Amino acid sequence: MARGRFITLEGPEGAGKSTHLALLAERLRAAGVPVLTTREPGGTRLGEAVRALLQYDAAGEAPTPTAELLLFLACRAQLMDEVIRPALERGEWVLSDRFCDSTFAYQGYGRGMDLAELKALNRFATHAWKPDLTVLLDIPEEESRARVAGRGRADRFEREQDAFHRRVAEGFRALAKGSARILRIDSTGAREETARAIWAAVETLLQKERDHDA
Amino acid sequence: MARGRFITLEGPEGAGKSTHLALLAERLRAAGVPVLTTREPGGTRLGEAVRALLQYDAAGEAPTPTAELLLFLACRAQLMDEVIRPALERGEWVLSDRFCDSTFAYQGYGRGMDLAELKALNRFATHAWKPDLTVLLDIPEEESRARVAGRGRADRFEREQDAFHRRVAEGFRALAKGSARILRIDSTGAREETARAIWAAVETLLQKERDHDA
Repeated sequence: MARGRFITLEGPEGAGKSTHLALLAERLRAAGVPVLTTREPGGTRLGEAVRALLQYDAAGEAPTPTAELLLFLACRAQLMDEVIRPALERGEWVLSDRFCDSTFAYQGYGRGMDLAELKALNRFATHAWKPDLTVLLDIPEEESRARVAGRGRADRFEREQDAFHRRVAEGFRALAKGSARILRIDSTGAREETARAIWAAVETLLQKERDHDA
Repeated sequence: MARGRFITLEGPEGAGKSTHLALLAERLRAAGVPVLTTREPGGTRLGEAVRALLQYDAAGEAPTPTAELLLFLACRAQLMDEVIRPALERGEWVLSDRFCDSTFAYQGYGRGMDLAELKALNRFATHAWKPDLTVLLDIPEEESRARVAGRGRADRFEREQDAFHRRVAEGFRALAKGSARILRIDSTGAREETARAIWAAVETLLQKERDHDA
């Protein structure tokens, strides 16, 4: 049996990642593909416990930038070893709401940590496994802020300054420009339009796989 | 004001680290030295929360080896940034129950992870700050097992196989052999004898500092 495909959805808060992840999972399942969906940070019991420390200061103390990065990577290592890799090896397709590009955008561009160092640390945490396709859902910063404001309690990242979010958004765009793996899709318009653009990319991947199997 | 000194106590479970840390702190304070004591993993609110995940599977799931290492490093980064470095800069002496050598012994020798890689990751987490002196309290493995058996609930490391503990103990000895920073002290005999050997090493450090200040 062929190894499954690994697709990640990335982008700023409010870009529609979880909505489009659910729509894509549904569509893939309708096409007969076994799908596993997950999210970062989290996706495992350990990861969800660490998520509470990262997003909501569950320990009563915010992590320093270095500790924050290492906690994200610990979540990723656990998720990779316990969930993603086994699923891919079983032939399932894995869809993740955020993955390594969030580290590069938030800790790299947002916090100013060295990108080459982040990439080396990420390689260590993931045993160098990478997504087959990353969809960057892009929306203007004002739109992102407006959508997040309409939600409940803001997490530690949502409470960051506008300048931080601007650096993150620019970072995502720079990453997309520099990598054939990352497809940037405008998520400002109607949901159906964005979903269609995502499906076009995923269908190509699916078709390649079926041609290869045939 | 001179920067404080950073002393770590290392060794297998049951070697007397916390007892000798308390004795050493008392003796230093009696000599007029401001002292801060801490421990790893832990020492910060975030670190203590992560400690529960690491030692007692508080999340209901054990971390994989890679996640375990990254969680230890996250604790260390937080402790370094929030506690150790500020204290050293205030001129205090910092005594820590475990630090980087436990990573090298447990994850390196114990779990078989690559030592050079661990050292690079540790440098990242600590911003390359190192202890001025490390005391390795050494006891035979049977003694360690016997002392730990007399305690309450065993943590995840204490429940590891004998072969693991043997590799860790041998690892500590190999690290001490390879580093002038690490002083190996036999901790099998009377407590006073061990305390005397530790104090002799620390007094030398103190004397050097006072000669330098004079």
